[in-house]
Amino acid sequence: MKLGIDIMGGDYAPEQTTLGAIAAFRELPASVKLVLIGDREAILSILKREGVDAGSFEIVHAPEVIEMADHPTKAIQQKPNSSIAIGFYLLKEKKIDAFASAGNTGAMLVGSMFSVKSIPGIMRPAISTLVPKENGGWGLILDVGVNADCKPEVLNQFAVLGSLYAQHVLHIQNPKVGLMNIGEEEEKGNLLTKETHQLLKDSKEIHFIGNVEGRDLFNDKADVIVCDGFTGNVMLKLAESFYGLIKKNDLHSEYFDRFNYENYGGTPILGVNSTVIITHGISKAKAIKNMILLSQEVVQVGLSEKIAQAFSKETVA
Amino acid sequence: MKLGIDIMGGDYAPEQTTLGAIAAFRELPASVKLVLIGDREAILSILKREGVDAGSFEIVHAPEVIEMADHPTKAIQQKPNSSIAIGFYLLKEKKIDAFASAGNTGAMLVGSMFSVKSIPGIMRPAISTLVPKENGGWGLILDVGVNADCKPEVLNQFAVLGSLYAQHVLHIQNPKVGLMNIGEEEEKGNLLTKETHQLLKDSKEIHFIGNVEGRDLFNDKADVIVCDGFTGNVMLKLAESFYGLIKKNDLHSEYFDRFNYENYGGTPILGVNSTVIITHGISKAKAIKNMILLSQEVVQVGLSEKIAQAFSKETVA
Repeated sequence: MKLGIDIMGGDYAPEQTTLGAIAAFRELPASVKLVLIGDREAILSILKREGVDAGSFEIVHAPEVIEMADHPTKAIQQKPNSSIAIGFYLLKEKKIDAFASAGNTGAMLVGSMFSVKSIPGIMRPAISTLVPKENGGWGLILDVGVNADCKPEVLNQFAVLGSLYAQHVLHIQNPKVGLMNIGEEEEKGNLLTKETHQLLKDSKEIHFIGNVEGRDLFNDKADVIVCDGFTGNVMLKLAESFYGLIKKNDLHSEYFDRFNYENYGGTPILGVNSTVIITHGISKAKAIKNMILLSQEVVQVGLSEKIAQAFSKETVA
Repeated sequence: MKLGIDIMGGDYAPEQTTLGAIAAFRELPASVKLVLIGDREAILSILKREGVDAGSFEIVHAPEVIEMADHPTKAIQQKPNSSIAIGFYLLKEKKIDAFASAGNTGAMLVGSMFSVKSIPGIMRPAISTLVPKENGGWGLILDVGVNADCKPEVLNQFAVLGSLYAQHVLHIQNPKVGLMNIGEEEEKGNLLTKETHQLLKDSKEIHFIGNVEGRDLFNDKADVIVCDGFTGNVMLKLAESFYGLIKKNDLHSEYFDRFNYENYGGTPILGVNSTVIITHGISKAKAIKNMILLSQEVVQVGLSEKIAQAFSKETVA
């Protein structure tokens, strides 16, 4: 298995991305090869300084960088020698099995759509975030930002994507799916959630438990919470700011420590024809390491193939 | 000034509502008369037990109760002798200057629309919630649940309603208005927020500072945050659950203590032709006392009249 890492992506690249790759290398089995995509000289100098044999990695030189502020579509086209453009080229050519980056999220999305493309039958790929449950487990919420406006049919697909992720990566059997809403009752909600509720209720592919509310994000009512990308993004940023306030107020608890994004390494772009993982631009070595470990796991369990399989059945039916 | 209190509303009525009224009576000036609407025998027996002179209050007997689970519209019609129906009758007849309740929120909304009605020019009344800001002040978010689907013009009105509330009740001069969105840039968002952004930008009635994000709820970027009732309700319940987790994890800080809804007494229904205040069904005496004090303040500053004035100008222009 070969995992491609965008060494130039994120606020602390190439230093922290390379350190993260070194840390991941030390935890991964020998059968997993890490492909470091970025400025060769910079990478070699960090490896040397850290006393790591450069032969442990495959290094692909990428002389250009897509900056965080660059326009995604333009950047991908105008910087063909950037780490992101090269990463997607390698992914499309199947020279690598996954591509992971803390860089420009928009460029990662656009790159996915231009190169490996979405899985046939998928209307809109989505990104999710992990949610630490009070009972010690993890849940999932999606979409958290790719699709600001969604149709009910799109949310219905998110429910399937989230269920497959929860089942194969979080190892939750028969994951409970909840619809984010403003009341428990079936007739509550806005036009989108009322219509989506009916689709989810009739779906045979998921285990729908009904509506959930903002207060249910952290309890065990649902393992997978479905919402449009606007609502998900607002919730995600609100939850992150709350965690920030807890740290700022110098409060400590084991439970809240689990909110630290550094521990879970990002999210796959669900619904594309390969494994693409993105994470926070502010990621340091620990978060990068976990992003790489997540990539390995997502490739290992064949998530993308499992999604393709589920949606090919759907198309036939 | 006469303030009507729904003694039968909420999970702990009539005990805690009456105790709350007693506590408010002790803090309010003699010129403010509290009108207790509910089961006369129950009220008198609590007042007697507490050693409070029943003559300090005006008591209006209401033999029926609208339960929390009752259907709002049906309940208002089928229980004309309920405390809520009688409260709105008194409010419409101007026998009281405000009506406050911890009871069935839907019935309070329907009652407002049937009796005092919305202010001419107002498309949709809204409810807000106070947000404790990190800098020690308070902010406002609206709508938090009445209007699940909103048009841009409705959000534009919420911006005015929220600004007037912030100015006259929170005493914030020239309050900064932010639009809840998923990015700071003007072109970010869903269809609703993109269109709303343009309206707010062109508005001469408010001080618009642009988009805010989920992470900006508690900082001082905006005093008034505008969103549709779906997004606001999800945020409100998420924030409440976070506060619950902090208490459950036995964490303490002065900042988070300010999240306790008991301290701020509910919210006016903004945009109706009188002062109507609602609060949580789980309110105990302290929250009820603060709901009554808030009623007094909202009547005192003439918020409803100020809103009517602002919107009558708008209609002319």
